[in-house]
Amino acid sequence: MTTNSAVFDGKMVNGFDFAKASGLSGENEKLLQRRLNVLGSIYPLFYGTPLHIRSAKGTRITDASGVEYLDVYNNVPCVGHSNPHVAEKVSKQLTIMNTHTRYLQDEIVDYSERLVATMPDHLDRVIFSNSGSEANDLAIQIARKLTGNQGVIVTTRAYHGTTDLLAGLSPDNGSQTPIDLTVRTVAAPDEYRVDAENLEDWWAAQVEEKIEELRRYGIGVAAILVDTIFSSDGVFTHPVGVLNKAFKLVREAGGLVIADEVQPGMARTGEHMWGFMRHTEEVDIISTGKPIANGLPMGVIGLTSDLSDSFAARHRYFNTFGGNPASIAAASAVLDEIEDKELLANAVSVGNKMKSGIEEFAQKFSRIGHVRGAGLFVGVEFVKDRETKTPDAALAFDFVTRMKEKQVLISATGPMGNVLKIRPPLVFNTDDCDEFLTKFNESLIELSDQ
Amino acid sequence: MTTNSAVFDGKMVNGFDFAKASGLSGENEKLLQRRLNVLGSIYPLFYGTPLHIRSAKGTRITDASGVEYLDVYNNVPCVGHSNPHVAEKVSKQLTIMNTHTRYLQDEIVDYSERLVATMPDHLDRVIFSNSGSEANDLAIQIARKLTGNQGVIVTTRAYHGTTDLLAGLSPDNGSQTPIDLTVRTVAAPDEYRVDAENLEDWWAAQVEEKIEELRRYGIGVAAILVDTIFSSDGVFTHPVGVLNKAFKLVREAGGLVIADEVQPGMARTGEHMWGFMRHTEEVDIISTGKPIANGLPMGVIGLTSDLSDSFAARHRYFNTFGGNPASIAAASAVLDEIEDKELLANAVSVGNKMKSGIEEFAQKFSRIGHVRGAGLFVGVEFVKDRETKTPDAALAFDFVTRMKEKQVLISATGPMGNVLKIRPPLVFNTDDCDEFLTKFNESLIELSDQ
Repeated sequence: MTTNSAVFDGKMVNGFDFAKASGLSGENEKLLQRRLNVLGSIYPLFYGTPLHIRSAKGTRITDASGVEYLDVYNNVPCVGHSNPHVAEKVSKQLTIMNTHTRYLQDEIVDYSERLVATMPDHLDRVIFSNSGSEANDLAIQIARKLTGNQGVIVTTRAYHGTTDLLAGLSPDNGSQTPIDLTVRTVAAPDEYRVDAENLEDWWAAQVEEKIEELRRYGIGVAAILVDTIFSSDGVFTHPVGVLNKAFKLVREAGGLVIADEVQPGMARTGEHMWGFMRHTEEVDIISTGKPIANGLPMGVIGLTSDLSDSFAARHRYFNTFGGNPASIAAASAVLDEIEDKELLANAVSVGNKMKSGIEEFAQKFSRIGHVRGAGLFVGVEFVKDRETKTPDAALAFDFVTRMKEKQVLISATGPMGNVLKIRPPLVFNTDDCDEFLTKFNESLIELSDQ
Repeated sequence: MTTNSAVFDGKMVNGFDFAKASGLSGENEKLLQRRLNVLGSIYPLFYGTPLHIRSAKGTRITDASGVEYLDVYNNVPCVGHSNPHVAEKVSKQLTIMNTHTRYLQDEIVDYSERLVATMPDHLDRVIFSNSGSEANDLAIQIARKLTGNQGVIVTTRAYHGTTDLLAGLSPDNGSQTPIDLTVRTVAAPDEYRVDAENLEDWWAAQVEEKIEELRRYGIGVAAILVDTIFSSDGVFTHPVGVLNKAFKLVREAGGLVIADEVQPGMARTGEHMWGFMRHTEEVDIISTGKPIANGLPMGVIGLTSDLSDSFAARHRYFNTFGGNPASIAAASAVLDEIEDKELLANAVSVGNKMKSGIEEFAQKFSRIGHVRGAGLFVGVEFVKDRETKTPDAALAFDFVTRMKEKQVLISATGPMGNVLKIRPPLVFNTDDCDEFLTKFNESLIELSDQ
């Protein structure tokens, strides 16, 4: 699109520059130096000035000097930071037992039944792991083993995890990490920039071309692996159904459809528990991680009995911590909270309020090119002007920094780094939203005044 | 070695046969059926009759009918099942905060400093993940990226984890899962069966041959990845130093030495915190998982600053749950307990008592071919007779079953399934050991009487 994409080639959009460590307060500079000594630069930090955090509750994070921030970014603590019900269930479990799945246990069976009930009927089995990465890695292993094909289709800025296999399937890691030879990439169905009469047809055509290419290269399509909200590609949510024709084509070609639900899953997009369900139920495997146990490590795939049994017959899989009672207790408490606090409905109502609030501001602020979202995941694209749609990453970074100065935490994403990533814990309520919109508007006004 | 190895080709040695579900008690049969419905046969169970467990404390596991078992098998709850200090630290942390590493936090820095202090001086950095699998996967990614080579050497029955990469590096998964084309296998330095004047020289020669082969195939050696106690190969612990010449050869050929410490690490072998230190300090990366946080999911690699910085400069790595404060709290409590309860010394004294107790029984029971071990990891090899050393897996399975009937939990391992795997929580004390030895002797006498 533009040449500045190299700026974000594998770099974090909203990162702290370690060269500026000496500009920090004495205490933070000292902690940062100790941190660099044992963890090194492979552990980046958010924000121009990193946040030294000490505690967190609900939608609030408190830093070491006692300043409280409104968290409009973190999706992992989906039922709120330090959720008391999660803490209580886990704490209790840790005094009872916490071991692996080679003994009969009630807890994992009870939870699995509840989890499976949130999925479309044909997805009646689960396999637990410890992260979205382990879940996606397993999903691809299953797809390759059972389809007999090797090719995988992902989006051009996809990010699917940290394992060796997934590094080759995650172009968003940047050009230093090669895309695997078995992988083909398609542009995301960008509702703002793609000029097509019917985006569903357009996307299906992109995917069809890659299916054909994989056939021509003799490896066929094992799977399309897609984050159905396209978080790292720039957050794309509409039109509903945009994925469906492409998914059908993959299945017709003998491949599986794998919905990476790490971002859109667990009630995030409202209405449905899983993000892909906004578009279709016709997927073969779903994987998730981040929000499922409110921050205790856990990943899971949902799949059909047929896939699970066929894989079990051809491959031994055991995951020591997968399905451990402590993580299961946390995950079970998350489901309790989603039900008891009606967080699906909350995602819809507060998400809509947030999106329409920003849309209203956008009428007065032409540097907002586009506002999009579903439930409590909203993307706001900053541009130099609406005619050319030239991405403005500097403005996005400036905006994120201003919001942080007003004690509101968001971030930026997308290949050009110009899309605000707004994705609060699901317990974000209307008061939180009002506060957020007020600060959002203030920041816009300050930028207009410059 | 013998033809019956096919029996354990990818199968669990001590597994429940799902076809026998109808032989269980009503309650257990019902639970098993529900379990099969949602989890499927990919989730095997231990023992001829599975254990339905309800709680666990210290070295004891209690089943659903209230029967208490002595746990002489589980290494994950290394400081004891339901350890109160671990439970307390985690519970407290869950009420304070539990988020990712892109904010400055004290806890992860404090813990990392403590952990690094347990390693040889040159290993001064850590990278956290959620399992031994994620740790090993990352270690191999680093080795390949930084050596420029692709080849990896593992043992013939190695098991290193669940990811796609590690499946290809884990021949123990069985012949249905292909060994990757970049991998070469060497026999483990089997102190019982290998007929060599000097086992260290013998093993170095095996490894040298594979290094040469990888060179000839044009991919060079990126790493040797080895569980220094050879758990899945049959548990080999002596002579001390047996690995050293081979490790040197790998380094001279430009490869890295990666010690998979999932089994021998965290005080298991006594004297040293890490198993490889019994042999040498000259390793490049160590990885661990299972015991590090007493059952909360966590993995970690220890490495040099040089490797960490070089990798960071060439690859983006972020692990959402890696280093999360709850797992860090558990891991920190584990270090507290190892120090406060002097579990290193305990592993030596109780481990020696256990081993010499069994050695004494072996004098009267010729079907014990060999007893070996280090600290609280003991292997006992059953044979048809000592002359031919023919492995006797049926006897091992019978013995494991008898021990379970006497409420003592152990398992069997090795390519022939004939090696008892005795590996209790590290808090196993002399009373536990006396009880274990009494039941062990009773079981031997029963078998002799047959």
